[in-house]
Amino acid sequence: MAIFDDNRFCKRFGLTTPIALAPMAFASGSELTAACARAGALGLLGGGYGDAQWTAREYSIASQMLSADNQAHARLGCGFITWRMAENREALDLLLEREQAPAALMLSFGDPTPFAKDITDRGIPLICQIQSMDQLPQAVDAGASVIVAQGVEGGGHGYSANEGRSTFTFVPEIADWLSQNAPEVMLLAAGGVADGRGLAAALMLGADGVLLGSRLWATRESLAADQAIEAAVQASGDDTARSLVFDVLREKQWPPEYHARCLRNAIHRAWEDRFDELKQAPEDARAAYREGVETHDYSRAHVTVGQGVGLINSNAKAEDIIAEIDAEARALLR
Amino acid sequence: MAIFDDNRFCKRFGLTTPIALAPMAFASGSELTAACARAGALGLLGGGYGDAQWTAREYSIASQMLSADNQAHARLGCGFITWRMAENREALDLLLEREQAPAALMLSFGDPTPFAKDITDRGIPLICQIQSMDQLPQAVDAGASVIVAQGVEGGGHGYSANEGRSTFTFVPEIADWLSQNAPEVMLLAAGGVADGRGLAAALMLGADGVLLGSRLWATRESLAADQAIEAAVQASGDDTARSLVFDVLREKQWPPEYHARCLRNAIHRAWEDRFDELKQAPEDARAAYREGVETHDYSRAHVTVGQGVGLINSNAKAEDIIAEIDAEARALLR
Repeated sequence: MAIFDDNRFCKRFGLTTPIALAPMAFASGSELTAACARAGALGLLGGGYGDAQWTAREYSIASQMLSADNQAHARLGCGFITWRMAENREALDLLLEREQAPAALMLSFGDPTPFAKDITDRGIPLICQIQSMDQLPQAVDAGASVIVAQGVEGGGHGYSANEGRSTFTFVPEIADWLSQNAPEVMLLAAGGVADGRGLAAALMLGADGVLLGSRLWATRESLAADQAIEAAVQASGDDTARSLVFDVLREKQWPPEYHARCLRNAIHRAWEDRFDELKQAPEDARAAYREGVETHDYSRAHVTVGQGVGLINSNAKAEDIIAEIDAEARALLR
Repeated sequence: MAIFDDNRFCKRFGLTTPIALAPMAFASGSELTAACARAGALGLLGGGYGDAQWTAREYSIASQMLSADNQAHARLGCGFITWRMAENREALDLLLEREQAPAALMLSFGDPTPFAKDITDRGIPLICQIQSMDQLPQAVDAGASVIVAQGVEGGGHGYSANEGRSTFTFVPEIADWLSQNAPEVMLLAAGGVADGRGLAAALMLGADGVLLGSRLWATRESLAADQAIEAAVQASGDDTARSLVFDVLREKQWPPEYHARCLRNAIHRAWEDRFDELKQAPEDARAAYREGVETHDYSRAHVTVGQGVGLINSNAKAEDIIAEIDAEARALLR
């Protein structure tokens, strides 16, 4: 224990290890979120695109699952896609109105300012994920208690490969800025952290902890399909790409600066160099994609993982993954 | 000292700190290389594009500078761009024929196989830099003693932003492969390491040491112009881009998979979205670029640095930079 006893991220959120579950849409449901909270990590439900009914239901289920364990229950929070909240904030409002406030609410991908005060006025810690240095003052001014530095190696949405920052330099550069301008604000590394080496490295770079995506996506409690996880287990970190291909196939309208990293499977390879063609006439490709999703054919459906996928060799229980990462990091830091 | 006493990279090359100077073309000349070797690091002269006369002269000067210090002299080596050696290997041959063999020879950007045996047969350690997992077996089979994992956040040439790996996941994935397949082969992290936090993090991720580029590029002994270094000191890590723009402006013919990361200055911004136009009619832009180089106007000339540039706040002596990084890493690892 001693090694993380003084960790301020653990102290602030009552964690036994400085890990937060990334609020991954379509992966971080009630089961995974509750499992992470029970394992001593911060459990952030994947509020994602803001389906109010889904979010309220899954949050309630997670809350019930944790009701017998006050410490674990106090680690339950949720994350949202900010630009979707700007279109429809019902899901956020439902969580703000709960009798027992969430442990934290996280906003990513857009200006947090319009929602921040409603969160922080209720005493709920605000976590803001950023992709570039120029987003940092905005997040701190909005009242963020925690900044998440999202490196471009991570899975799912983030800045494009051309515009994005890598975790390795982004974390220390933010740490320097925070230590000069807002030393009370904490920092998590996201993007590429998939084992205890990554947690230890993130702490060396100046982070207070890590936000884990892909590694917790590939767990029994995740909403990801077993076949998708199997495809990820087989993949190397070379086998991903960041693009807009799957957003066109899935009919998601993200702001143009955000691309998504997924496995670079057959359907991605087929369209990545013919992207304009795909945008102009997406119907056939969308039909193939939908069939891939329905039949769990992950040469045609998307598998949302980052470059850390090369470090993922099993579909295991979230509790075991967190214990393993924690133990490996402690051994390295001792 | 104790912390790096058991470091096998230090032991093998007689170093006092697990740092190698990146053999940066047009930066790592005799002065910088000798300064790094004297400071306890591995000094790799930037043989770059393979100008035999330049390489032989600068190597001889560095050798003379170190002649009074056997330990430092034993840390003198050189690095080359592999695809250029395939066109003209005279510079390599001149170093192979030297009476006192180089401490190491490094090859990057291409298949090392045609040159590897000539190096290893002389007992010279071969260092191979790679950009993807699929290059790893080739480098190990060629007889590499050291693999350099080059993350896409680094400065200068490497894989494109879309194809490249980030240091944070690339290092541990290579470490895992080596531990199973070639445990005697050592591993350095390159790309994004610019301070003691980066060195400590690289070691946590499974590297034996680091290859330092940008941070040593921005030193008094570097061949980089003071005005270019000043532009780098002012920049944030957000201010770089990886592209082919400067290769067209400089008339360098790199294989298509390699792009270069430089400051995203005015001339880069002017052409990055009109790249086909630039390729078709580059004359005016080249004239502007050349004038930028001649007048030290770094809004028009290139400044070759990686995303770690946001961690570089001074133009200092290489010796002081290495001592500072070493001390910071030791303090973190203690």
